[in-house]
Amino acid sequence: MATQEVHQLEHVSIGIDVIGERKESDSMGEIEVPANHYWGAQTQRSLIHFAIGDDHMPKQVYHAYGYVKKAAALVNSAAGRLEPWRADAISHVADEIITGKLDSEFPLYVWQTGSGTQSNMNVNEVISNRAIQLLGGELGSKAPIHPNDHVNMAQSSNDTFPTAMHIASALEVKKYLLPRVEALAAAIEEKAKQWYHVVKIGRTHLEDAVPLTVGQEWSGYAVQLRDSARLIDYSLHGIYELAAGGTAVGTGLNAPPQFAEEIAAKIADLTGLPFITAPNKFAAQGSLDAMVNAHAALRSLAVALMKIANDMRWLASGPRCGLGELILPANEPGSSIMPGKVNPTQCEAMVMICIQVIGDDSAVAFAGSQGNFELNAMRPIIINNFLHSARILADGCEKFRVFSVEGTTLNEKRIANFVQNSLMLVTALSPVIGYDKASKIAHKALDEETTLKQAALATGWIDEKTFDQVVDPKKMVFPND
Amino acid sequence: MATQEVHQLEHVSIGIDVIGERKESDSMGEIEVPANHYWGAQTQRSLIHFAIGDDHMPKQVYHAYGYVKKAAALVNSAAGRLEPWRADAISHVADEIITGKLDSEFPLYVWQTGSGTQSNMNVNEVISNRAIQLLGGELGSKAPIHPNDHVNMAQSSNDTFPTAMHIASALEVKKYLLPRVEALAAAIEEKAKQWYHVVKIGRTHLEDAVPLTVGQEWSGYAVQLRDSARLIDYSLHGIYELAAGGTAVGTGLNAPPQFAEEIAAKIADLTGLPFITAPNKFAAQGSLDAMVNAHAALRSLAVALMKIANDMRWLASGPRCGLGELILPANEPGSSIMPGKVNPTQCEAMVMICIQVIGDDSAVAFAGSQGNFELNAMRPIIINNFLHSARILADGCEKFRVFSVEGTTLNEKRIANFVQNSLMLVTALSPVIGYDKASKIAHKALDEETTLKQAALATGWIDEKTFDQVVDPKKMVFPND
Amino acid sequence: MATQEVHQLEHVSIGIDVIGERKESDSMGEIEVPANHYWGAQTQRSLIHFAIGDDHMPKQVYHAYGYVKKAAALVNSAAGRLEPWRADAISHVADEIITGKLDSEFPLYVWQTGSGTQSNMNVNEVISNRAIQLLGGELGSKAPIHPNDHVNMAQSSNDTFPTAMHIASALEVKKYLLPRVEALAAAIEEKAKQWYHVVKIGRTHLEDAVPLTVGQEWSGYAVQLRDSARLIDYSLHGIYELAAGGTAVGTGLNAPPQFAEEIAAKIADLTGLPFITAPNKFAAQGSLDAMVNAHAALRSLAVALMKIANDMRWLASGPRCGLGELILPANEPGSSIMPGKVNPTQCEAMVMICIQVIGDDSAVAFAGSQGNFELNAMRPIIINNFLHSARILADGCEKFRVFSVEGTTLNEKRIANFVQNSLMLVTALSPVIGYDKASKIAHKALDEETTLKQAALATGWIDEKTFDQVVDPKKMVFPND
Amino acid sequence: MATQEVHQLEHVSIGIDVIGERKESDSMGEIEVPANHYWGAQTQRSLIHFAIGDDHMPKQVYHAYGYVKKAAALVNSAAGRLEPWRADAISHVADEIITGKLDSEFPLYVWQTGSGTQSNMNVNEVISNRAIQLLGGELGSKAPIHPNDHVNMAQSSNDTFPTAMHIASALEVKKYLLPRVEALAAAIEEKAKQWYHVVKIGRTHLEDAVPLTVGQEWSGYAVQLRDSARLIDYSLHGIYELAAGGTAVGTGLNAPPQFAEEIAAKIADLTGLPFITAPNKFAAQGSLDAMVNAHAALRSLAVALMKIANDMRWLASGPRCGLGELILPANEPGSSIMPGKVNPTQCEAMVMICIQVIGDDSAVAFAGSQGNFELNAMRPIIINNFLHSARILADGCEKFRVFSVEGTTLNEKRIANFVQNSLMLVTALSPVIGYDKASKIAHKALDEETTLKQAALATGWIDEKTFDQVVDPKKMVFPND
Repeated sequence: MATQEVHQLEHVSIGIDVIGERKESDSMGEIEVPANHYWGAQTQRSLIHFAIGDDHMPKQVYHAYGYVKKAAALVNSAAGRLEPWRADAISHVADEIITGKLDSEFPLYVWQTGSGTQSNMNVNEVISNRAIQLLGGELGSKAPIHPNDHVNMAQSSNDTFPTAMHIASALEVKKYLLPRVEALAAAIEEKAKQWYHVVKIGRTHLEDAVPLTVGQEWSGYAVQLRDSARLIDYSLHGIYELAAGGTAVGTGLNAPPQFAEEIAAKIADLTGLPFITAPNKFAAQGSLDAMVNAHAALRSLAVALMKIANDMRWLASGPRCGLGELILPANEPGSSIMPGKVNPTQCEAMVMICIQVIGDDSAVAFAGSQGNFELNAMRPIIINNFLHSARILADGCEKFRVFSVEGTTLNEKRIANFVQNSLMLVTALSPVIGYDKASKIAHKALDEETTLKQAALATGWIDEKTFDQVVDPKKMVFPND
Repeated sequence: MATQEVHQLEHVSIGIDVIGERKESDSMGEIEVPANHYWGAQTQRSLIHFAIGDDHMPKQVYHAYGYVKKAAALVNSAAGRLEPWRADAISHVADEIITGKLDSEFPLYVWQTGSGTQSNMNVNEVISNRAIQLLGGELGSKAPIHPNDHVNMAQSSNDTFPTAMHIASALEVKKYLLPRVEALAAAIEEKAKQWYHVVKIGRTHLEDAVPLTVGQEWSGYAVQLRDSARLIDYSLHGIYELAAGGTAVGTGLNAPPQFAEEIAAKIADLTGLPFITAPNKFAAQGSLDAMVNAHAALRSLAVALMKIANDMRWLASGPRCGLGELILPANEPGSSIMPGKVNPTQCEAMVMICIQVIGDDSAVAFAGSQGNFELNAMRPIIINNFLHSARILADGCEKFRVFSVEGTTLNEKRIANFVQNSLMLVTALSPVIGYDKASKIAHKALDEETTLKQAALATGWIDEKTFDQVVDPKKMVFPND
Repeated sequence: MATQEVHQLEHVSIGIDVIGERKESDSMGEIEVPANHYWGAQTQRSLIHFAIGDDHMPKQVYHAYGYVKKAAALVNSAAGRLEPWRADAISHVADEIITGKLDSEFPLYVWQTGSGTQSNMNVNEVISNRAIQLLGGELGSKAPIHPNDHVNMAQSSNDTFPTAMHIASALEVKKYLLPRVEALAAAIEEKAKQWYHVVKIGRTHLEDAVPLTVGQEWSGYAVQLRDSARLIDYSLHGIYELAAGGTAVGTGLNAPPQFAEEIAAKIADLTGLPFITAPNKFAAQGSLDAMVNAHAALRSLAVALMKIANDMRWLASGPRCGLGELILPANEPGSSIMPGKVNPTQCEAMVMICIQVIGDDSAVAFAGSQGNFELNAMRPIIINNFLHSARILADGCEKFRVFSVEGTTLNEKRIANFVQNSLMLVTALSPVIGYDKASKIAHKALDEETTLKQAALATGWIDEKTFDQVVDPKKMVFPND
Repeated sequence: MATQEVHQLEHVSIGIDVIGERKESDSMGEIEVPANHYWGAQTQRSLIHFAIGDDHMPKQVYHAYGYVKKAAALVNSAAGRLEPWRADAISHVADEIITGKLDSEFPLYVWQTGSGTQSNMNVNEVISNRAIQLLGGELGSKAPIHPNDHVNMAQSSNDTFPTAMHIASALEVKKYLLPRVEALAAAIEEKAKQWYHVVKIGRTHLEDAVPLTVGQEWSGYAVQLRDSARLIDYSLHGIYELAAGGTAVGTGLNAPPQFAEEIAAKIADLTGLPFITAPNKFAAQGSLDAMVNAHAALRSLAVALMKIANDMRWLASGPRCGLGELILPANEPGSSIMPGKVNPTQCEAMVMICIQVIGDDSAVAFAGSQGNFELNAMRPIIINNFLHSARILADGCEKFRVFSVEGTTLNEKRIANFVQNSLMLVTALSPVIGYDKASKIAHKALDEETTLKQAALATGWIDEKTFDQVVDPKKMVFPND
């Protein structure tokens, strides 16, 4: 390890072509790990102790950790605390992690230590051994790249795991979720424009109300989505604040001066997102408030989407015994017993996604409230739910857009019929003849099964010409044009 | 206080006809309380320290505490630990509490100490001072009836508060909630019988499906309610187990032998409900599991009611642009702007009640998980939510029955039209001509806007006679008659 | 009604000095109302049909409605649609409502129609009758001030109820909640400053960790609160957008041009808050997203407060068998059976408040997802939960500050002892002798029940001078000073 | 297909050794599927339309469906509706499904149609094609085993999917979850016995209280678990009721008489669990109440486990600056930065599991409330959450038992010290000298930092002999022995 020339990174493909097991050690002693994997003792212990269900720490967390480890190595190296060749090696492996090439080396479960230490050590161990491989050393020897002393230098799980959570969350939201929400909102706006002048009956309390246009109705959906997207974006302000540099309890013990600022700047640089160091590390590590708040923003999207998906499936209900205003694309046969049935399956999937996100949100808030002292030890459950919610919302938006919204058409005949028959057009008479008389006309038409006009004229309270002038659905939907 | 003759209860009406304030004391020292109230120092302190919002400990908790104090006095007296005249005095005041005559003396808030100690002391203090009044003593003197030494004898808040919670909950459920659920279920069953043969179109995924009868549909509602009622009743098994006798931490320190069994028996006797002593006091005081589980049973009712209320408002939607199969009673004008509008307001109120109960349930479960060691200090929030949920469900069932279910009628013409037009009657053809051909007929009818029969005959796959025989809605709803 | 001189407002005190009942009518017909109240037929019907539990529509909703009715009258009058004397009368009564003088006239329940129509009509009816009284007319005659045609002019419940919800929410948050959160945050910051240099042991996973100062720990609490306050404030952006002007379904039918903008400006003027008209009325009335999001912000405060209250009660646990670092003020005796016991009751109340808010939040999100078409008919449950959560949080913050935070002191002796005995100071050795050796020293000290120093020197890996220099708690808490 | 001899099942191993794609068709037309898989057109369409996230329908659902399809084939065959050789073929493939051999053929996502139709069709298609393969036919030809006409005979997704949900849930609970809960309860009972006489200080409100034994404390944990297990078992009563036979809307259309009873009996026979036919199919298909209630029972377990895991981690906190009464097994190094740290990781994992289950429970209840008319179309989300919750609880119990409970030991020295120093032993004096004097003694000892005995004797209210007799922790924990 003395001379610099031995520390050249060799070109070794990823993979360890050995069968059987290898001894690895940590402060608890030795343990055997599968010889064809890079992970070390602590990962192996966790695999044994926490084989619970089938929930694995999301890969995005490890990709994010790649940025953390790379940034730490670069900062430590620049400050002269870590030899450049060590930083290079760590950095090289971190890039492999970031790009997903080492995904198979991160097998741990969600239900593990609440700090995420085991996943941090998993990363440290994999980087150590992969770097050792690249440097021609002996796997498991911790030399020349030690998982704690070098890879974890100036770091603790307590500050880097929340940092990785924030990075993973921000990337997922910016690169994956928001574009899909935007695309859906745009598709809905397109429909709103297309149908801007199609007059339809409004419904409040599920009951017939005064008319509006289909385009107006859909414009509301788009605004709901855009408002949610804005809220999600705003919630990232908290996510952009990184705990890195606080180390074990927020004081920054064992981290050099300016490390916090420098690693945040480096991570911002590497990811292209405006990360900064959290102004108060005690809050950043003792709580997970920013994550709770960001999930609440995801929930706001779920609440909006649920209304939209429900409206669509109700408006498409039928084909003969429902509302039947919309015709959704028929993507698949709907029933194993009823031939020819077509169901609003995309809407149903979306509704279920939304309910799941709302349920996950309550788990996240609960977990967020359970911090104690210098650590909130509910990190894995929170990041797992966050990435899960973001992903199913994103994919759900995509499928909903492509397989439902974009192919939806109107049953204009039915829409027009409803407007024609509705009694609530009487509302337009209210400013003319007063609420009480207008009310009596509506009841009369309903009781006698006549049209509104018939009932109105029969009362003698209004003449036909005025009626036709006032009770004009087209005017009613744009009263101030 | 030495001779027995002075300890006759005098006939003194409830009330203290004094203005200004009175000194009361506890181990923290003296404090002034309103002279016209019976409560003492600890109640007063709590009033000052916990004036939070407008949520007051439900009166039912105090009524239940009346049973606890009376039962304790009787058991202590029978065992020779408490002089009979003291037991009489306590018992007399307890009866006044049970019957609600002293309700104004229990002003405390929900948001207080998590053990309910302040409400227990409120009861102890009120009984002490009211008994002192009845015995001709001096208010605040704690003699001859001491709030701790006599009224609280052999008890702790830690065992009596959960005991009072259980008594209050069981009484609320048995005397108030379940009769109203039963009445609603019976009203629905009545409708189911009445409409047993009215054939209507079924709907799955909101889409037209094969027919059933209105009575069949409503029979399902009744079964949902009866199943929930059964579950609520079952949940009382845990509620019937009382912590009393466990005292401070479950060991029964300062309670005499057999006290636990005897007080439970006495409470059972006084209330007419099958209370027993909890077999394990450490679980009974360290957890609130029985309350959590009983609230989950309330939630099951909410989940069922929400489905029923939603079905009713959708089936009644219209009058002209909705499903319109049901006609709900018009209890009030529906709109301040749209004359003549009638809305399914009872259904909406019920839906909101159900959502509130489901939300309260998540608060209850959360609180139930937060016990530590020998006490779950989340008692006030749990009993408040339980009694709130039970009450709004009970009242909601009552109003929903009287003002919605019982007055609901059918629009039989519309119901028949839907059956007539539906394409899903094609399902009956499936066993005859196979799923694939049946499916083609349905699509053909939809595309060509014909009836099912027209489309079927046009294909040549079936003759008219067979069609009429097979596609008979009346047969389809009772296929095995 | 013809001459202007009759329309002078007379000086009539609030109150109707009549016993018995009065006939009032609406489109359903006549009904008797208590003669000594101002409300009319629709209020009375609602009282009968919805007597469910004891949850009443919060008074703040009516106060907010006072602003709506006043603003509408002024705008209508300015536009020449409403006679100035009518506007004056409405305005005068609206002021009485705003200042709470007519609170007794608003008896309705939360569990009513989901649009809040009945509460809107309650306001309309009370203004009508009170104005009639002031104008010398006949109660119940609807002349010269008609509840619908004049008081509700250019309005619908569908746009004004959400408007009142937003006004009530914004006022509650700005005038009541936020000042109390700020005061609590300031009190905590004060403590943080005072204790800035008191070194204490850190705890992660509940286990001993490296030291920090009490002031650092408390600085984190303050930041959590300030972040939540900022989030709550941000959530008001959605709340400041008002639906008024959308009328029945968002199209603005029966409202004059510019009415939406003008009424929002007038409300902003009257309340001093930056209300604007919602850019899209279909979203503003079809959803309650802004309310859901604002409640999520309240929840963020609850999550933060729960952590703080839990930390405080754990750190104060004891006095002899707990952590005992903090000494909370002893506000009241803690136990009815254990003499001398003092409990962290303010913390417990706060924890319960937080759980309730988190539970309420899940009800709000659920309700928020249940809108259909042009109306989310879950308004009463949402505004009731919002105002409830805001109020108990506000009052909870106040009591918690005054009766817990401000009186909290340190047990400095105990704090120092913990630092002295802790083994985790070994962490400072890690950069000097490496993680693995440092780990062995910690385990050795634990196993042999020695101090860290004894164990460290016994290994020979470090000399005393270096040990003393490196393992200095005071340096460890400000490593970069 | 005419002669019976061609219908011998050939011995063909599972697998289709073809590359490329195969044409499959349904009522929507043709579509290409991977030639090496058995699934057909509808599965393929679902794969395309619902590729959302990474949540796949749990395999247990398909295994359960194996029972449904086998039972249906046997019942249909016995009734003479299905040729025996067809029933044999279906039955044979169903057995392959039940035993997990065809797991790779069920790739669908959770977020699909809300009825589960696509998963039912997936099963139908796989059975059809695999049976065709075994019978020497052509894949995709639907002959001689048609997915709808034969495999789905007398069934609908609407009745069989909830049936499969119930079978999967009951099997998971009885075979997997309950044994693990029992094992944990037994391990805790073992500890309770072992530590039955170890006196420790009780804690209420986190504050020192009167003593109990460690065994008593742990006996409470065991009772909590046993009560939850009993509740889970009771909840299976609803799960044992099967919808099969109700077909599309509950009327049993296209199912022969007695089919419902016979298929339930057959499923009971095949699984060894007491399944019966649901007495009311409209409730069984229109709601998912039994699933909601069964999940609530799982939640009761989560609530109990959370209290236990929290107690354990707090009692083990330290080693020097916490409560330190318990010593948990050190399974792994606890910190990447603090050498020698050991954390209560099993407890943390358990707490997170419990929070997730409580969160999932709120999703399940929400979904359960969203049924409409003849179908609750929220089935996939509910079964996925149920099986997820049951599984992580089961595995969590197992790991928690093996890696935490069984290896836990006592720090008896520390436990004894706490008892020695506690002031709350004063409670035993209360019946002797009264609550008020006892309270003064406790405060005096605290203020003067003396032992309780010193303070007591100093007051002169009690002599040493009486003190020693009364204040004996060993007597206090078994007061009635």
